[in-house]
Formats: sequence, structure tokens, C-alpha cells
Amino acid sequence: MLNRLGAVELAKRLASREVTAQAVVHDCLARIHEREDQVGAWAHVDVEHAFRQARALDAGPVRGLLHGLPIGIKDIIATHDLPTQYGTPIYKDHRPAWDAACVAAIRACGGLIIGKTATTELAYLTPGNTTNPLNSRHTPGGSSSGSAASVSDYMVPLAVGTQTGGSTIRPASYCGVVGFKPSFGLMDRHGVKPVSETIDTLGVFARSVDDIALLAAGITGRDALFPVKNIGRPKIAIWRTPEADHASPESVEALERAATCISRSGGHVADLKPPDAHKGVHHVYQDIELFEMARALRFEKENCDEQLSPGLRARLEQGALVPADLYDRRIGEAEMLRLQFKECVTEFDAILTFSAPGEAPADLSNLGDGIFNRGWTLLHAPCLTLPVLRGPQGLPVGIQLVGAFRDEVQILACGRWLEEKLRQ
Amino acid sequence: MLNRLGAVELAKRLASREVTAQAVVHDCLARIHEREDQVGAWAHVDVEHAFRQARALDAGPVRGLLHGLPIGIKDIIATHDLPTQYGTPIYKDHRPAWDAACVAAIRACGGLIIGKTATTELAYLTPGNTTNPLNSRHTPGGSSSGSAASVSDYMVPLAVGTQTGGSTIRPASYCGVVGFKPSFGLMDRHGVKPVSETIDTLGVFARSVDDIALLAAGITGRDALFPVKNIGRPKIAIWRTPEADHASPESVEALERAATCISRSGGHVADLKPPDAHKGVHHVYQDIELFEMARALRFEKENCDEQLSPGLRARLEQGALVPADLYDRRIGEAEMLRLQFKECVTEFDAILTFSAPGEAPADLSNLGDGIFNRGWTLLHAPCLTLPVLRGPQGLPVGIQLVGAFRDEVQILACGRWLEEKLRQ
Repeated sequence: MLNRLGAVELAKRLASREVTAQAVVHDCLARIHEREDQVGAWAHVDVEHAFRQARALDAGPVRGLLHGLPIGIKDIIATHDLPTQYGTPIYKDHRPAWDAACVAAIRACGGLIIGKTATTELAYLTPGNTTNPLNSRHTPGGSSSGSAASVSDYMVPLAVGTQTGGSTIRPASYCGVVGFKPSFGLMDRHGVKPVSETIDTLGVFARSVDDIALLAAGITGRDALFPVKNIGRPKIAIWRTPEADHASPESVEALERAATCISRSGGHVADLKPPDAHKGVHHVYQDIELFEMARALRFEKENCDEQLSPGLRARLEQGALVPADLYDRRIGEAEMLRLQFKECVTEFDAILTFSAPGEAPADLSNLGDGIFNRGWTLLHAPCLTLPVLRGPQGLPVGIQLVGAFRDEVQILACGRWLEEKLRQ
Repeated sequence: MLNRLGAVELAKRLASREVTAQAVVHDCLARIHEREDQVGAWAHVDVEHAFRQARALDAGPVRGLLHGLPIGIKDIIATHDLPTQYGTPIYKDHRPAWDAACVAAIRACGGLIIGKTATTELAYLTPGNTTNPLNSRHTPGGSSSGSAASVSDYMVPLAVGTQTGGSTIRPASYCGVVGFKPSFGLMDRHGVKPVSETIDTLGVFARSVDDIALLAAGITGRDALFPVKNIGRPKIAIWRTPEADHASPESVEALERAATCISRSGGHVADLKPPDAHKGVHHVYQDIELFEMARALRFEKENCDEQLSPGLRARLEQGALVPADLYDRRIGEAEMLRLQFKECVTEFDAILTFSAPGEAPADLSNLGDGIFNRGWTLLHAPCLTLPVLRGPQGLPVGIQLVGAFRDEVQILACGRWLEEKLRQ
């Protein structure tokens, strides 16, 4: 069952021609075939096209880091050869003229786009048909629902998503996989349908930190990201977020287990009190997101209003009412918060905090709360979630490492170190 | 000849129903018909569709600020009902699924998209077929060639373009119109084909500052931008740019005439020496633009290489070689330069500097040099160019006002004040 292998292991075998891309695709498609009715991770899978890509890769030279690896792409990201429907009937069967920059980069180093993963409506709050692969009565989280679920369910080793609120870290935590939202700007967003220009960031999913790093290196062409560098004794700060009372006992336990594991393994753990101004981060986030979303989705609002969900329609109406001077002030405040955060993290390799309030809610209409994610996306900081334990309902709970802007090398190193220590 | 009127005057007559949108469209189309063979300002004009929009506007209520005004849209900006071809055969006859956010905003307040204005190849350096309407042997500048030329030639009162290097300010100066590149982020870029995510900014063209402000207010919904506020005695700093030796005698004369005019009219003029670090701005710009352009246009490079011009192909190859750590350093330097510039301008209402090295070159293959523009776009500062005089070849020369980030209200006020004083 090649679909059970991780990306790094598969990439090794593919590069050495020990296995063919066709064989890998075959096993992934078999898993999708077996499980898709239950999981609903996909907006579109093109079996023939997947094999066509695989045959071409098998027949040609090894193209690069991601040679022959089947990858799922969130369906708000443009692909020229597969429909891109943005989770809304407005764009049913839509086919863009180009590949998004991240897709072009994946293909340039041999990645194989096996299909488009299900997303919420226009990457906002109205769920698609995806269920949590670990318990189909529970949400997978969103908006990158299908990307998280497909990787969790061994349908693909790697998937790409996005994050505005908590759309990468939260579903990764809910589905028990590794999720990584790099710094703002690390990955080009051309071809990604926007929600909020100032905040939207690409994110990636895998089942290990090494696999995450491989995909991030493939997309960005940055050799420094893969292989993940070794770190001796990381200095980790626990971020006593003002929202800690939103964390369930199992999330608190996950954080404590991770902190204990770090100290016991020789790492340094310290408490970090967020600066007072950080308390305002949610208001800043909210006004910027609402204002920019109403701007970005204006065409849909003006022309396809009746095809929008009532929830999204209401948000766009609300966003159109955010005064421009409030928005401008929030943009300035966001800048200040970023500078402040930079000061906070200089002494540490990473911050340790919650990934999500708890296990995935037992409610398919509730994508869960991004309260532990929105602030970091606004701050443009790299975030990595790792699964730590199973909660009372048997579902995974992750913890989150957050790093300094553009310090993905360090955050991946800390993540790999902690992942290993947690396994011991 | 309604096409000779400015946007504010036309908007007044349209809103009072003194003239119909159909009549305005008729006169604009007549001018286009008369002059387009010579000027080549348009990638696409749909006569029937323009009249259809005009009839609908005439039959309905007054929709807003731009009601009934014919507007040209640079052909790298998506329109769902008109082809969007990006100045390249790769996207011949391409029709996007949506309107760009700025187009949706224009339509929401009654603007009428009369056609798509000619652009250079993918908004980079390879010219289209546009000539300078004031002398067809001279370049109109680029990349927003058609937007500048169409407004200059009285084909439309308003047009939208973009600026990465100097693609709004330079062609506006060459064609003798007012050009305005607001602060980065003031106008949403969704639906604009990117060159450089960190730098690309929308820009607008008109024949007066009031008209510019009307369009900017229409796109952004910001009441503070229009009507332009009055300013008493502006404090203007002359920016003695390290590149001043690139300015021709006529550009120096334009700057001096504007400075003299400001002092004589009661304004305050001071000299400002740029901080030393500012000298590096061109290197910072160059590396960021190259790196990001190669990333953003990767699909075209990988899939349509033979349809790219040799110049663009070479730039994309060069961009792919910019090391990621150099790029990261440049991103940090750009941040620092922005903070420094903020300090520099606090005491002033605006900076006065060159718009372009001189008159439009007498060479249709040479779009002119953006040396006086690139730095400001990188700094995310609002820039406004005004025509000041005619040079030895009889072509216009503008000067540029540059303001503090997000202070468009002030920069428009200074611009309108200076425009008026220059006329006296």
C-alpha cells in the first residue's frame, strides 16, 4: 500500500525508480475510491489525467524534489487542466486559463496533481461535504477541509491549502496531521482566490514534519527548508494567550504534555506574557478581514448574490459597512503588532501554543473556532501544528509552534525535534 | 463633443440627466473610431456592449459617483464580459470568469467599461502597438500605455492601469495627463495579473486632479477622497534624488517651475536630502521584482515559453536565479526603507520630484526609464503626476508629488492646489 508511505520515503523510491509514479497513483486512487463516499475530501479527481501525468513522469527524467508524488490542491487554487470551482455553484465546472504559481512550482519539480480538494464556500465558513476521516460525524475543520482530510486518510501524502483565519492549522489539528502555514509572502499567491489580501497565506499538509518541509521546499525552491536542519536544545516560550479559557482540558493537556516533553528532552521552556496590545489582535483581524473580503468578493456579491450562502452574504454586507478610516487604523495597528511580536520572539526559537480549542466538534455544520489561529495569520508568522494526543472522543489534538517572520527554517527544525521527542 | 469634457463635469451632467450615458458613449466611441488607427490605445472595444451598458444606465436610477462615465481598463485586469488578453498571444481571446475587484467596484457605482486598454506583454517591457497621441513617432510609455494614451487623446475621461516600476506615472507624464498611483493596498488587486506581489499597485488616469479623485473615490468607496479637500499653504519638500543626473534639462525645468510656483503662491518649499540608505532602493527593487516575477509567471514560463518575447523570457530566467536569501534580505531592507521614508515625510505635506527623465523617447520600442518611479512603488507611497510644461520636442513633461503611506487625501489636496497655481 504505497499510499500509506510518507512523502519523503515515496520521493526516495520514486527518484531511484524503485517504484513508479503509476504505482503510487494507483494506490492513492484505490484509497480514494474506497473511502471517498465516506470522507468527501475531493471536489474533483480525474483518474485518467492522473495516470497520464504519472506515465509522463515515469517515462521522463526525474524532475525534482516532488517527482511523482500525488498532491491534492485546495479547490480555490487555479489549475489549468482540472476544474477549479471555489466551493461555490457560481463557478461550477470553471476552468482557469493558468496554473496558480504554487501549482506551476509543484509541477516544475515533478509533483503530480491528482485532484482538487474540497473547500468551504469561497474559502469562508460554509462547509462542503467533507467529514473527519477519523469519525465521520465530526467536522474535519475548514476551510481547507479536503486537504486535511485527504492527507489524514492516506489518500495522498501531501496537500496544499490556505489560511486566512485558521484554515490550515485547525483542520490539520482536527484530522491529526501536520499542518504548516509559512510566513506571509513565502509562497506566491497568484491564482489563489483571495479572501483578504493582507492576511491570506498558503498552507501545506502532510503526515510528518519532514514531509511538510519537502513540499514547502518544492513550492518555494528553497534548499534551506529541506532536509530539515537539526537543532540541539530549542528555546521554547509558552504563550499564555489571553484566550486560554477557550481551550478545552484536552488542549491544555496537549500543551502541557508538549511542554513537559520539551523540558525532559533537554529543551528550554519559558513562560511568555503577551504584550497588552496583543489583546486587540482579534478586533484588528476581524475588521481587516471583513473589509477586505467585501472588496475582494464584490463581483460575486453584485452579480451572483442568490448563489451565495446566507452566511457569506451577511458577512459581505457587514464588511461593506466597515468604515475605511477604521480599516486604515487597523492596518496600522497590525503593523505595530507585527513589530511588537518580533521583539517578543527574538530570544526564542519558537512559541508553543494551542492549535485549536479541542477535538473536532461533533457537528458537520460547525468548522470549529479559529481563535488560536487568526492572530498569527494577521501577524504573518510561520505556524506549524503537530498531533500530540487523542481527546476524550478519540479524536486528535495538536499543539502549535509559532516562529518569527520568515524564520521557517527554525520552526521546521523545532517541529521535527519535538515530533521526534513526542514519539519517544 | 462630450468626450472633451472631464469626468467630474460629465458625472454632474449624467447625474442630473442633462446628458445620457448613450450620448457620452457615442462621442467617446466616435473619437476612438477616428483616432484608434493612429493611437492604438485599445486591446478591445465592444461597441454594442458599450451601448447596452449605457442604455441600462440611462433606464435605471443613478447608481453612484461614476454613473455613466466611460472608463478604459488596462488589459491585465479581469473583466467577465470583455476579453482579457494580458498583452500576450498566450491569452488571446481569454475571458475570465469574474470582474477584478476594481472593475466590480467601478460598476457598482455606475461606471461603464467601454473597453480594454492596450498593455505591454504581461505588464512588462515589451510594447504593444500604442503610440503617443501627441506625436505618433514617440512612445506613450508603459506598461499602462493604452490607459494613458486613451485619456490623453480624449477617447475616455478615465482609465485604470497598474504600476510596478513606473507604469502609471511615467506614461501619464509622457502623454500629458494626470496619473495617480495610490498607496499599496488602497485598491484591492484581485483579478489583476501580478508581476510582483510585494510591489504591484493599481493606478488611475484622468485629465485633472479632481477627475482622478472621483475615480479613486469610486473604486475605493472612500468619501474622503472626493471632493478633493482644500489646502492652505502646503509644505513641500524637494527630494534631491541621487539619480537627479538622469533628469533632462526639461525635467529639471519642470521641477524648478513647480517649486517656484509653490513658493510664489504662498506654499513652503524646503530641500530634503534622502537618507543614505535610500541610495540602495534600486537594488532592493530590482531583486524583489525579478524574484517575484519569476515566481508569479512560472506557469507561462514552463508552458508557453515560445510565446514569450525574448526579453521577458530572459528576465524570467534571470529572476529564477535570484537567491532566496538575497530576496529575503531585500524584503527586510524594503521594510526598513519604508520606515525611514515615513520619518522623512512627517514634516511635509508632499515631496516634489521628477515624474520621468524627460519627454517621451522618439522610439516606439523604448518605453522610457522608470528610474524616478520604482523606488516609490517599492516604498508603497502614493504618487501623483501633473503635466507642467512642453519640452523641446513639443511633448509634455510632468512633475511628481509623493506622499506618506496612506495619505492620499493630502496628496490629492496638494496636487489640486498645485494644478490650479500652475494654471495661473
